[in-house]
Amino acid sequence: MRVLGIDPGLTRCGFGVVDGAPGHSPQLVAVDVVRTDAGTEIAYRLLRLEHAFEDWITEHRPDVVAVERVFAQHNVQTVMGTAQAAGVAMLVAARHQLPVALHTPSEVKAAITGSGRADKAQVGQMVTRILRLDVTPKPADAADALALAICHVWRGSASDRITRATAASAEQAARQRRAYALARQQLPAPGAPA
Amino acid sequence: MRVLGIDPGLTRCGFGVVDGAPGHSPQLVAVDVVRTDAGTEIAYRLLRLEHAFEDWITEHRPDVVAVERVFAQHNVQTVMGTAQAAGVAMLVAARHQLPVALHTPSEVKAAITGSGRADKAQVGQMVTRILRLDVTPKPADAADALALAICHVWRGSASDRITRATAASAEQAARQRRAYALARQQLPAPGAPA
Repeated sequence: MRVLGIDPGLTRCGFGVVDGAPGHSPQLVAVDVVRTDAGTEIAYRLLRLEHAFEDWITEHRPDVVAVERVFAQHNVQTVMGTAQAAGVAMLVAARHQLPVALHTPSEVKAAITGSGRADKAQVGQMVTRILRLDVTPKPADAADALALAICHVWRGSASDRITRATAASAEQAARQRRAYALARQQLPAPGAPA
Repeated sequence: MRVLGIDPGLTRCGFGVVDGAPGHSPQLVAVDVVRTDAGTEIAYRLLRLEHAFEDWITEHRPDVVAVERVFAQHNVQTVMGTAQAAGVAMLVAARHQLPVALHTPSEVKAAITGSGRADKAQVGQMVTRILRLDVTPKPADAADALALAICHVWRGSASDRITRATAASAEQAARQRRAYALARQQLPAPGAPA
């Protein structure tokens, strides 16, 4: 099972891909952080993230997308942007007919460290150990995305929070996905005149 | 100026298109509500809304998209879905390089009724009067979407909350828009075998 974990955010969005199966050591496939400029209006920040989600799904072909479940916190304005980034991640996953799993931060921390109240440093340390890496992925959003992916591998199909396509939505998703595939073939290479 | 007003929501999303200019009576172009099934997982509800936003923008070719600014309220889980629906609306607008304007509910109520604390019935009544309609658009989400569009016509370019494309994001949006346009030409009609 290949899982794309997404730690949603407008300023920094963490992406982490892990291969694994319950009972086996998960393997790192890819990890990165996509940033969008705080000076850019939110609509265009979401557009930038949509492209990143498309690119990661197309390149790594995950079997499932695990997204952090967003809760209202102290900073309401930040949480709205985070919820919107998570929404676009789910949208792109649905377009590719990929199941979407939502895990809460405390579920992820508990799965990785044994404590739902672990701090970021602890999560980073355990991600490094579990994936047998030489250095801890930075920034924390990158490690958090991997933690989400590992959490999903370990919880596996036990999770009842997986989004699956109905027949109608599958057809809709297939149409949208084909639209992208067809269009990509005909678009000029990045940097070429529009 | 043609404005597409969007009252975002997962269960009911209001769409209202109005033609107008500051100092002139706005004209109704179209109004409707798009519903998504509460039993469908959120990723597919967002996918359904994305298609609706695409269809409305393609059919009515607005000059600007006015979206209600979402605030955290009592029901946090509802507000997350609303924020995500608004996020997808902004995303699709950006893809079409349309400016996005955000107006708060109290700005809209104040513009339409003179009071930022007006109730839904009052807003519906004033929308009906302003657009010289025979009946009040139902449900309230439909009237609210028209109220947003009228509010934007009247506030016009005075609004400092309009999202505009930078050169880089404009190029990105143009590529994405062309992708959709090309793909749509090649897709079978709805209902045809995928």
